Amino acid sequence: MSKALERRAKLREALIEAAERAIAAKGLGGLKTRELAQEIGVANGGVYNLVEDVDELILRVGSRTLARLDASLSLAEIGGSAAPREMLVRIAVAYCDFAADNLELWRALFEHRMQPGKPVPEWAITEQMELFRHIYKPLAALFPQRSPAQLGVTARSLFSAVHGMVALGLEHKLIAVPIGQLRSEIATLTRAMVDGLTAKKE
Amino acid sequence: MSKALERRAKLREALIEAAERAIAAKGLGGLKTRELAQEIGVANGGVYNLVEDVDELILRVGSRTLARLDASLSLAEIGGSAAPREMLVRIAVAYCDFAADNLELWRALFEHRMQPGKPVPEWAITEQMELFRHIYKPLAALFPQRSPAQLGVTARSLFSAVHGMVALGLEHKLIAVPIGQLRSEIATLTRAMVDGLTAKKE
Repeated sequence: MSKALERRAKLREALIEAAERAIAAKGLGGLKTRELAQEIGVANGGVYNLVEDVDELILRVGSRTLARLDASLSLAEIGGSAAPREMLVRIAVAYCDFAADNLELWRALFEHRMQPGKPVPEWAITEQMELFRHIYKPLAALFPQRSPAQLGVTARSLFSAVHGMVALGLEHKLIAVPIGQLRSEIATLTRAMVDGLTAKKE
Repeated sequence: MSKALERRAKLREALIEAAERAIAAKGLGGLKTRELAQEIGVANGGVYNLVEDVDELILRVGSRTLARLDASLSLAEIGGSAAPREMLVRIAVAYCDFAADNLELWRALFEHRMQPGKPVPEWAITEQMELFRHIYKPLAALFPQRSPAQLGVTARSLFSAVHGMVALGLEHKLIAVPIGQLRSEIATLTRAMVDGLTAKKE
């Protein structure tokens, strides 16, 4: 790599890390490219030599968040009984813990909207979809007769249900719940969903 | 009521209706008090003779949305078998339909944040909590041994899970789902949750 390219790569990484700190501290609304430029020591417009636009910057931060979430879910997967029902419960609770520990970065994953008319790039969609494998694997063990497409539907439903509990539970508004209680409710409902779904196995 | 008070009440209603149309068309981000003032024919600052601030205006629109949601859920409650399991399924599907038909107004209920340090007023919290009675009633029939507090926890968990499926299913991003499929997934998972929870009745 040439000296110039190397410098650019380092600045780009510094920019993404500065954006990550800003979002973690103040949420998506606290992201000001002018402040980031100052922090990493480039001119205001210089940010746009490093990333295409703010959407790309936010997606790159999201990419780092997803990688850490992926690591947490992988640990949960192997951190106990191999029975698929209990594995799903551990994954659901780990998702809750990750969201609580990374509240603003996790929120940013769902609150960010691309500028109108701009699609989410393929690489970002692929990264998001990759995470479903954690749920997919134990579901495939529970429902060996289901097709991959059917398992995909079930994985999405389970994820959405747990996500809803985490999102509203951590929301400091309508129904904020102490984290210990939230974890136990998530475990209870995840077990109930699995039990209910397996009771009428096709 | 004096002529002046009457005029103020009418203007206030016109303002809230104009805000409702703006949010329905363009979401919370599309709400500009300057445009609303023009639409109802008052000076720019005149809006603040009618409502305290933008937060109050948004909460008043939310109040109208919640009242219509309440009516939809009431219809779902009585629109079929009185068996609590099927009643819960109808309520969940009606919630999905309402969100799909009132997408931006429904989103505004959850996306709106009060200005920092300002609590949500009691009247708004009471209105939101009132809606839980739709879920609470059939749950009380399913779990006669549970205390009101325990039923409250279960109602909140069920609501959050269904809300998560609706929110991510209607999100035009990660996992958008055709509405027919979403409705049937919600029905399936709601039945599974009820079956799973009743299977190990205390």
